[in-house]
Amino acid sequence: MAERGAHDAVSIIAAKRDGRELAPAQIDWVVDAFTRGIVADEQMSALAMAIYFRGMTRDEVRHWTDAMIASGKRMDFSGIGRPTVDKHSTGGVGDKITLPLAPLVAACGASVPQLSGRGLGHTGGTLDKLESIPGWQADLGADDMVDILADPKIGAVVCAAGADLAPADKRLYALRDVTGTVESIPLIASSIMSKKIAEGTGALILDVKVGAGAFMKQRDDACELAQTMVELGAGAGLHTVALLTAMDAPLGRTAGNALEVREAVEVLAGGGPADIVELTLALAREMLDAAGLSHVDPEAALRDGRAMDRWRSMITAQGGDPKADLPVARHNEVVYAETDGVVTALDAMDVGVAAWKLGAGRTVQGEKVQAAAGVELHAKPGDRVRAESPLATLHTDSPERMNVARAALADAWTVRDETSVNAAPLVIERIGPGRG
Amino acid sequence: MAERGAHDAVSIIAAKRDGRELAPAQIDWVVDAFTRGIVADEQMSALAMAIYFRGMTRDEVRHWTDAMIASGKRMDFSGIGRPTVDKHSTGGVGDKITLPLAPLVAACGASVPQLSGRGLGHTGGTLDKLESIPGWQADLGADDMVDILADPKIGAVVCAAGADLAPADKRLYALRDVTGTVESIPLIASSIMSKKIAEGTGALILDVKVGAGAFMKQRDDACELAQTMVELGAGAGLHTVALLTAMDAPLGRTAGNALEVREAVEVLAGGGPADIVELTLALAREMLDAAGLSHVDPEAALRDGRAMDRWRSMITAQGGDPKADLPVARHNEVVYAETDGVVTALDAMDVGVAAWKLGAGRTVQGEKVQAAAGVELHAKPGDRVRAESPLATLHTDSPERMNVARAALADAWTVRDETSVNAAPLVIERIGPGRG
Repeated sequence: MAERGAHDAVSIIAAKRDGRELAPAQIDWVVDAFTRGIVADEQMSALAMAIYFRGMTRDEVRHWTDAMIASGKRMDFSGIGRPTVDKHSTGGVGDKITLPLAPLVAACGASVPQLSGRGLGHTGGTLDKLESIPGWQADLGADDMVDILADPKIGAVVCAAGADLAPADKRLYALRDVTGTVESIPLIASSIMSKKIAEGTGALILDVKVGAGAFMKQRDDACELAQTMVELGAGAGLHTVALLTAMDAPLGRTAGNALEVREAVEVLAGGGPADIVELTLALAREMLDAAGLSHVDPEAALRDGRAMDRWRSMITAQGGDPKADLPVARHNEVVYAETDGVVTALDAMDVGVAAWKLGAGRTVQGEKVQAAAGVELHAKPGDRVRAESPLATLHTDSPERMNVARAALADAWTVRDETSVNAAPLVIERIGPGRG
Repeated sequence: MAERGAHDAVSIIAAKRDGRELAPAQIDWVVDAFTRGIVADEQMSALAMAIYFRGMTRDEVRHWTDAMIASGKRMDFSGIGRPTVDKHSTGGVGDKITLPLAPLVAACGASVPQLSGRGLGHTGGTLDKLESIPGWQADLGADDMVDILADPKIGAVVCAAGADLAPADKRLYALRDVTGTVESIPLIASSIMSKKIAEGTGALILDVKVGAGAFMKQRDDACELAQTMVELGAGAGLHTVALLTAMDAPLGRTAGNALEVREAVEVLAGGGPADIVELTLALAREMLDAAGLSHVDPEAALRDGRAMDRWRSMITAQGGDPKADLPVARHNEVVYAETDGVVTALDAMDVGVAAWKLGAGRTVQGEKVQAAAGVELHAKPGDRVRAESPLATLHTDSPERMNVARAALADAWTVRDETSVNAAPLVIERIGPGRG
């Protein structure tokens, strides 16, 4: 506490607490001092909570993002000879879209440098999903990443961000996770965008989830988050478009690591659930448009097997065996319907919590996950069910977890005596510059 | 972060952040876990910031105070054979009232167990002031404290609180000090009252300062703080009365450790500034009333030298030499008036900052202070001045600090071409049960 800087920090915390705008120099100082350990964790968490309550102006969030980027190194893919475009999802239940999308877009001529994360709580992480493939490695050096992106037979990579990419954001996120300060729109926006801008992608498509299974439950909040990120991208010269998409029910029919890989492979084989196919193609079209490839038809690449070929080469390039059997859970149980009717709603959060409790997710950072655990859905909104027909199969290696998962699913399905359900649109709104 | 408790903490932080009332069990758990190091500093500071924004219900602040008390030991003065009564001031500039007040009340028949603190920033600490007396010691064991209180020739003690008195509050206060979370009414109220209730005094008089030189600038805030503390006291069976008193101009004519002791001794000798005498007597009457001694006249005890005798025995009991010369600063400079007129205002905060910068106060906890540094005021509101007549004398052992102090005082005096000033009342309001 005798550190001089500790008291500069107090005046910055108090300024934000009292609703004053932070000057660029204050933001630069506090983020840099936090990275160097001069501003203590307890000061940064108090500042984060003050930001939660007071928000940030557009100028503040831009400077904050710049300071996060400046805390580490920037990557550069300009030498690979093809346009690069990345996709980021704010996280939902059953969201395995990256798995078919990255190889699909690569097959259409753009390179996809996809730095991904691990799951926490009810949302799964893309790296956790791919790690269920025997041999597949999430950690790549920057040179290997560039080599894969430049390879005309691969062109897509999904890997963990290096420790030198926005390290201040990495520290801050870990801190927010344990201090109740995750749910702040400017902090979410700057966290995502600092990593994506530092990553050096040429364009970025954001999939901003809204609904019961998303961080953003309200459309207004999701819109503000999307708008903030699109402006941050534009300010940094990064072509950025956001799609607001529904996360009321889970995406597809699986939630869990190997289960979701299996479903992604079905989509790459030309089948799979309609919602996964629809969202994959909508995002692919935006990515190709942003990459200057709006004339290429991703649907054809999915149909004729080119996307599947890319998937295999992408998995192989990171040490995985695309033909190996995926792990299967040691125990499974079926959840049955209690009445006849039509499923009018399926709560994504309940399904996400059930998959997490079965072992597919983690409670704290660093915990191991079960590759085979999760929930397989047999009835989704619009489906007819009868009493005693199966709603879901629960998969786990830990049978003692079945009861907790069943409890989480107790009110997940709404079954009504109706003849049909009006399907809500999956893509709700597009935010960003017009299509090229 | 793998601690189970860390995640219980997140749910408590999020509940307060979202405006929900914390249950007694949640408060007990979080305070106890913080004391034991399971809830981390970064979690507690985020919770404190959420409390700053959301406030606390009366039930919450009562449970929070109880939890602070339960984190340590309670003292017991019931065996000393006389009523005990303590006074606490929320802190102001030139507030040396404890110095004449404690021996005065003891001379009138009540025992005064005064646990005091050290100064931080622009407000001075009672212990820092007394430590300017050669030999005087702030640290006393609990047994010595009881012996002095029970001694019919002494009966007053001013000392540092032991480490086992509300230790959770001690840790929390140090944390709030560096995280911009000091200025929360429920946290201020529970911090003061947990220590006073644990101290075991039979009655408590609060001097809640309001004005430019106080933590509470607004009367409404000061009222709410006073009301909260009086209710906390009543709820714990502690007879508690609060006086709201003005802290626009400094109290008396000195701000600085030895300078204030000298002024206190003048008051005990029957002289001294009128505002110090007025406030000392007002607080003494409340303390005597609360101790069941409303028939005793403190003014007589001040006039006839009984209070001075007690002062000498009180100082001697803690190793001090009441006859020793007080330290004198190595350098002094005079600040002069620029125009003729009447002083209509004198900014207590400016004077407090000047005294602090001259060396009388500290910037961070644990720093040493200069015994002789400070500001001696020659012109206060109501006084007539002429251009070139002295407004103040600055005292310091560090002449390089003179310019900073002069700058702090640049706008401290308001001098107007008027004939007189209406003196504002010193005691603004009384909050608490009726006088006995």
